[in-house]
Amino acid sequence: MSTTPEPTHGAAASTKAVRAYFAELQDRICDAMAEIDGTPFDSREIHNNRGGIGRPRVLKDGPVFEQAAVNVTFARGDHLPPAASKRKPELAGRAFEAASISVIAHPRNPHAPTSHANLRFFRAAPSGSSAEPAWWFGGGFDLTPYYGYAEDAYHWHSSAQDAVQAFGSDLYPRFKEQCDEYFYLPHRQEPRGIGGLFFDDLSELAEDGANSDVPEETQFDRCWALTRSVGDHLLPAYMPIVERRHKTSYTERERRFQLLRRGRYVEFNLIHDRGTRYGLQAGARTESVLASLPPNVSWEYDFTPEPGSAEAALLSEFLTARDWLAEPLPTAMTE
Amino acid sequence: MSTTPEPTHGAAASTKAVRAYFAELQDRICDAMAEIDGTPFDSREIHNNRGGIGRPRVLKDGPVFEQAAVNVTFARGDHLPPAASKRKPELAGRAFEAASISVIAHPRNPHAPTSHANLRFFRAAPSGSSAEPAWWFGGGFDLTPYYGYAEDAYHWHSSAQDAVQAFGSDLYPRFKEQCDEYFYLPHRQEPRGIGGLFFDDLSELAEDGANSDVPEETQFDRCWALTRSVGDHLLPAYMPIVERRHKTSYTERERRFQLLRRGRYVEFNLIHDRGTRYGLQAGARTESVLASLPPNVSWEYDFTPEPGSAEAALLSEFLTARDWLAEPLPTAMTE
Repeated sequence: MSTTPEPTHGAAASTKAVRAYFAELQDRICDAMAEIDGTPFDSREIHNNRGGIGRPRVLKDGPVFEQAAVNVTFARGDHLPPAASKRKPELAGRAFEAASISVIAHPRNPHAPTSHANLRFFRAAPSGSSAEPAWWFGGGFDLTPYYGYAEDAYHWHSSAQDAVQAFGSDLYPRFKEQCDEYFYLPHRQEPRGIGGLFFDDLSELAEDGANSDVPEETQFDRCWALTRSVGDHLLPAYMPIVERRHKTSYTERERRFQLLRRGRYVEFNLIHDRGTRYGLQAGARTESVLASLPPNVSWEYDFTPEPGSAEAALLSEFLTARDWLAEPLPTAMTE
Repeated sequence: MSTTPEPTHGAAASTKAVRAYFAELQDRICDAMAEIDGTPFDSREIHNNRGGIGRPRVLKDGPVFEQAAVNVTFARGDHLPPAASKRKPELAGRAFEAASISVIAHPRNPHAPTSHANLRFFRAAPSGSSAEPAWWFGGGFDLTPYYGYAEDAYHWHSSAQDAVQAFGSDLYPRFKEQCDEYFYLPHRQEPRGIGGLFFDDLSELAEDGANSDVPEETQFDRCWALTRSVGDHLLPAYMPIVERRHKTSYTERERRFQLLRRGRYVEFNLIHDRGTRYGLQAGARTESVLASLPPNVSWEYDFTPEPGSAEAALLSEFLTARDWLAEPLPTAMTE
């Protein structure tokens, strides 16, 4: 950020650390996915003329992943777009820098779920010479199964809880609820998937059970540690499920249902997703932004799953914003 | 419209005529498509609790049309949504009635183009007891080829010109330009197709060459005659092209390219199209609104057509907002 002196401590010093972590996490995730798939990622580094860097990595047409996209971007600009912060509209228009990582994996096998994760860090320049820059984190991860498995849902949500539990026992229920609210298609009155974690505008984390007055540096450290913990929990949350499901034999009917459900995924991303719409409107590289879309998709007019089928159970038992860690597992689709 | 007395003359009397014409045009279009395809349309009539009627008709999985949707809706409401009229924001909030027909045909054969048409009529209640209700028409038709044929493009645009020529020689160039502007994907910097006609907020049509002061009843008659002429020209514009192309032999590569280009169609409809977004936001029946989407679609990260190929020619020769009626036909892809 050219308008601020080189940071030496606290939140400001840590932009470098955030960028380093996102780059390392990208390597770690791509390595794990390329290893199980046997297909390398196409990796690029694209510099724009405003000092921004995009590092799209995409695995296409693999035996395990029909597509996987792991993108890291470092952006800076003179005017923070209003869409960047919902809670702090007064920051819009300031000089800013941003770092983000997004992960989308679309397995080929209909029994293996699609996963999505995103972590982001924003820092806006101070408005006066003495004020500290404002900063915040956002992110989370969510799962979109095509065929529901209660043990997968339980494992996913346990991992989500594990990721944030040490930072406050209220966080998992709060972030889970925010995830259910965000990944929802109002025009279908359907959740996109079974959720996970979603947080935004995070720059304060109370000590568990107390609203103590903590210095900002400690707040940064705590929010940053939580964000890393969410990043670190993605592979342990997702890969065991992929390993369990990617060799399951499947029928044409199951493949067809997967393609139809992927249609919902496209609808969500193109109609509702703030990140996708913002990326397209802000002039980001379209191929990087839309690498989140599944490679093959179908729509069928007035499709309704057969009552009592596994396809119907996905909607009635899984896409219901249920509390996976509190309730007994549904008997449908458990193994 | 319960707030106005039964209309006896002029624009007000003609809501019935508009509805009757749209219903008859729907029959005519469905009959022609069902005949060439050999597959019947699924036809429904859906009444909502506000006096609205939806008549979705969808042909699925036919040998000629992979999907075709011809929907007629009659809506009424107490508050005109702001999106209904761009030019007359002062009408928002008034009681209104609306009638519309939309037509989308996705042929199976990649050499046969997708076509889209829409006609709509709005009437808003008067603000005072003596004022006449406001009314306006909108609509047009546009073509989306996957493989470009200059003779098809010429035929399509000739038909478009024929449809409106009698109402003013300025109309075809004006409506064509509006069509090119509207059916454009800014994030791809690409037109959706080769265009056609697009008009909106139409309640005035000058006599050719003169801006004479015509009474409203005559203006209504003229705008309504133009709207009908556009509707009447759709089948003669489109069906000869379908007849010419639907049996063309095609390769896997051509099918694949068609599916990728259909991805652009989905992007346009879900991100940009006012009708689709308005329908979903206003709580219209989602399955009717999204029957416009192609049934099978692909995305491929960073796909680029081979230089010199027919796929590259689609972009360089056809999707260029060119003046098809003024220029000599491009040599590429003429037969």
